[in-house]
Amino acid sequence: MYYLGVDLGGTNISAGLVNDKGAVIQKLSVPTLKERGSEIIFSDIANLCLRLIEENNLKLKNINSIGIGFPGVSNEKKDIIVYSCNLEFNDIDINKEIKKYFDLPIYAENDANCAALGESICGSAVGCKSSITITLGTGVGCGIILDNKIYSGAFCGGTEVGHTVIVVDGEPCSCGRKGCWEAYASATALIRETRVITAKYPDSKIFELVGGDIKQIDAKVAFDAAELGDKYAKHIIDEYYKYLAVGIANLINIFEPEKIAIGGGVSAQGEKLIKPVTKLVKGMVYGGKMKTSIVKAKLGNDAGIVGAAMLGKL
Amino acid sequence: MYYLGVDLGGTNISAGLVNDKGAVIQKLSVPTLKERGSEIIFSDIANLCLRLIEENNLKLKNINSIGIGFPGVSNEKKDIIVYSCNLEFNDIDINKEIKKYFDLPIYAENDANCAALGESICGSAVGCKSSITITLGTGVGCGIILDNKIYSGAFCGGTEVGHTVIVVDGEPCSCGRKGCWEAYASATALIRETRVITAKYPDSKIFELVGGDIKQIDAKVAFDAAELGDKYAKHIIDEYYKYLAVGIANLINIFEPEKIAIGGGVSAQGEKLIKPVTKLVKGMVYGGKMKTSIVKAKLGNDAGIVGAAMLGKL
Repeated sequence: MYYLGVDLGGTNISAGLVNDKGAVIQKLSVPTLKERGSEIIFSDIANLCLRLIEENNLKLKNINSIGIGFPGVSNEKKDIIVYSCNLEFNDIDINKEIKKYFDLPIYAENDANCAALGESICGSAVGCKSSITITLGTGVGCGIILDNKIYSGAFCGGTEVGHTVIVVDGEPCSCGRKGCWEAYASATALIRETRVITAKYPDSKIFELVGGDIKQIDAKVAFDAAELGDKYAKHIIDEYYKYLAVGIANLINIFEPEKIAIGGGVSAQGEKLIKPVTKLVKGMVYGGKMKTSIVKAKLGNDAGIVGAAMLGKL
Repeated sequence: MYYLGVDLGGTNISAGLVNDKGAVIQKLSVPTLKERGSEIIFSDIANLCLRLIEENNLKLKNINSIGIGFPGVSNEKKDIIVYSCNLEFNDIDINKEIKKYFDLPIYAENDANCAALGESICGSAVGCKSSITITLGTGVGCGIILDNKIYSGAFCGGTEVGHTVIVVDGEPCSCGRKGCWEAYASATALIRETRVITAKYPDSKIFELVGGDIKQIDAKVAFDAAELGDKYAKHIIDEYYKYLAVGIANLINIFEPEKIAIGGGVSAQGEKLIKPVTKLVKGMVYGGKMKTSIVKAKLGNDAGIVGAAMLGKL
């Protein structure tokens, strides 16, 4: 049996054919162009799914279900996209939209939850009943798996861990509040801090690496400059790790999951990031004995597709 | 059928006979005198249980089980007290200890978890599949009920929500770290802040209410002085509410439970506290739509006994 998984993002729609072990057989992608509205977007999703079926010489009866991951909130039955700020969707009945094309079970789920499910079923948290996957990108995304299931709150709007406050009255956050974890641990926050420090200290290696153009600073350059021994970059990274660790320790003190997987752009640093952050978190966990392990997420950009596909296996 | 529930605290051992609706039929209590060691303490627990059975003309066959709530960590099977800092217990096999006296199923569980279970089965969160009970006392205790069950982490050491950091590098906490929620939202924190402000402003009503003796300041006096219109007391209470609200909003942004119940000494303020805190939290919840309701815990000091007794009903 095969599963179709769709990662419906603000920029691209990616769809994948996934086998029952969670391996991606084939992937296809088109731009979202969200201003076209939901009806055309769902027709594109159906087209991608149809191509995946045909190009793999499959029949509809070989497909278990279609799962759609998206940035936003679904209802409890997972058949309505209640709200997506990014896609400007409100109360979209996905059964109605997709069943025009396929008579298959359809599921919709928040994309961070899909990523966490993917990691849990066939990524970095295989074999763990409880795991949390955080993604360090534009924001801080978070999906929570408890007892092998997605936990998304009584009203399906929960697990906005990026928007828990770790510094009362701290840095402004995209959500309008101050001091959220996201305002310290996202790639965006890292870029912001790197720009502030670099503008202040033009003798830093970072300044050199971006050819004196502060705007060129991304989430990677501070790591590169720190590697070259730059003291300002080291300071930036140390501070970034500290706030990242505080949020992870908070999650462990609340959930004590078997694993915490770190994904998103910043996680490309791999063990260079995982090792020092784990050391910091160990010093922060209540009672001093950390049983949770912190690992790099495995599935990368495929996590969303795999997790969405695996919604049909839950 | 009846249930025996024991609240084994650092100061007192309270035991109660509880019916299958969670109502306390009779309660008995003796001092813990923990320096006597675990064996004598368990013999006292057995005596209290025996008296409850006999004084109510019951037989052993009328008793379903004995549940014991205690400050600390149990194992997954709930038959070992792994660790209690407060009682100085390590790896106590409660089956072995209690089965000397009674051939009944025995369960041990963290006391904050018992209180949350009690509130969920027959207190302020009846009918809710998910609820969180926080107790504002010496520390900030927290029990989490998800899907009608106690959630206590993969390794049973989780849900130390009082020790999540809300102010990086903030006030020192009893756990050795800085900026934990407990260091701002416990009764202890409220007393600390009241003392600092009162020492600074001897013209405050608080100073008058404690007869000029700063040491007499408790967790109630700032509320009393605020009621009398004292501006310093109002400031103390407003700040206290703010930090309390930040932690509650964090919990909602993570869990989105149906209810959050507030217990412990400070909750005696009732609606005077619940109303302004709810208003603050509403302004802090991600997405702006709060579906969780914040209520006063109902069972008071009985929560521990009732919850411990109800362990046998899970």
